[in-house]
Amino acid sequence: MDLTRITQQIRFIIEADKLKEIFRQTICTQSRRAENDAEHSWHLALLVVILAEHSNTPDIDLLRVLKMVTIHDLVEIDAGDTFAYDTAGMADQHEREAVAADRIFGMLPAPQNAEYRALWDEFEARETPEAKFAAAVDRFQPMLLNCLTEGAAWKKHGITSDRVIARNKHIAEGSATLWAYAEKMLADAIAAGHLK
Amino acid sequence: MDLTRITQQIRFIIEADKLKEIFRQTICTQSRRAENDAEHSWHLALLVVILAEHSNTPDIDLLRVLKMVTIHDLVEIDAGDTFAYDTAGMADQHEREAVAADRIFGMLPAPQNAEYRALWDEFEARETPEAKFAAAVDRFQPMLLNCLTEGAAWKKHGITSDRVIARNKHIAEGSATLWAYAEKMLADAIAAGHLK
Ligand SMILES: [Ca+2]
Repeated sequence: MDLTRITQQIRFIIEADKLKEIFRQTICTQSRRAENDAEHSWHLALLVVILAEHSNTPDIDLLRVLKMVTIHDLVEIDAGDTFAYDTAGMADQHEREAVAADRIFGMLPAPQNAEYRALWDEFEARETPEAKFAAAVDRFQPMLLNCLTEGAAWKKHGITSDRVIARNKHIAEGSATLWAYAEKMLADAIAAGHLK
Repeated sequence: MDLTRITQQIRFIIEADKLKEIFRQTICTQSRRAENDAEHSWHLALLVVILAEHSNTPDIDLLRVLKMVTIHDLVEIDAGDTFAYDTAGMADQHEREAVAADRIFGMLPAPQNAEYRALWDEFEARETPEAKFAAAVDRFQPMLLNCLTEGAAWKKHGITSDRVIARNKHIAEGSATLWAYAEKMLADAIAAGHLK
């Protein structure tokens, strides 16, 4: 049996193991340690399948959304995590991540290399209904964890509610229901003193 | 806007955050710390989409496979991780996990509660092509990590190659190619002295 192709694919899967060491600003609800990108990506997959019915566009291609959330943060193996409110880091974030996407998805055999490189571009562009829904859960999940940990990441970095809303309101483009829930959740966080 | 349904779904998503604290016997390739179930489930999703072409059955329903691997370990929030070679723990494993499945998937609103409870049963029964492929990657991924960490989990528990093969050979039911790769990988591990 020729194992050349699967060997190349498994080399990519081994490289991806590094995602388990990329730590985010958000903390986990139980141990209160920093969440890593692999855990975050898994949590997004769960949000996608459980909340799919709330997508603004009915009958989106959920398989494509799941592929997107599974691979969307692999670029951070090279580019590192950029905090959502780090304006300096965000200036060249896309450029740094695009270089990483070339290298990392380039490890896959054809046509998967082009397929996943394009899927990452689709996620980043946030234009298709699938990308809008993927981006909505990607923005909602850290807010949810922040609300459940008394606003830990917001307090640590002095992030105010106007910035949280400006940064995350595009959730409504993917799911109006999810954004309605988020607005209520943020109002509760403000009332509880976890967000200013 | 009525947020009753999404509120119930998000309660399930919050409960699921506990999966990030369920640690396995396998260790991560970079930091060499124990892998947790959330990271493991994410890694499986990546294996599913990248290795799908090697499924024995062509054109399996990948969305269902991805749903399965995303939710398959949630029962361990209540039942804990049972090491693949812990014969005492495995005796009542399914029973303990089925009780956990009732509680955890029971948190979802209808019809999702029944859908995901049935999906977990399908994964466990390993009869459909989708469940066979999901089970194949679920068995392959820890072996891969063990091989990449000089057989750490095998050595720690004195697991020999005959037990590894007996426990994992059903990978071939999901993917003959993946099992061929695994056999070669295990032979290399034995040759390197990482597995006896
Ligand atoms: Ca990111």
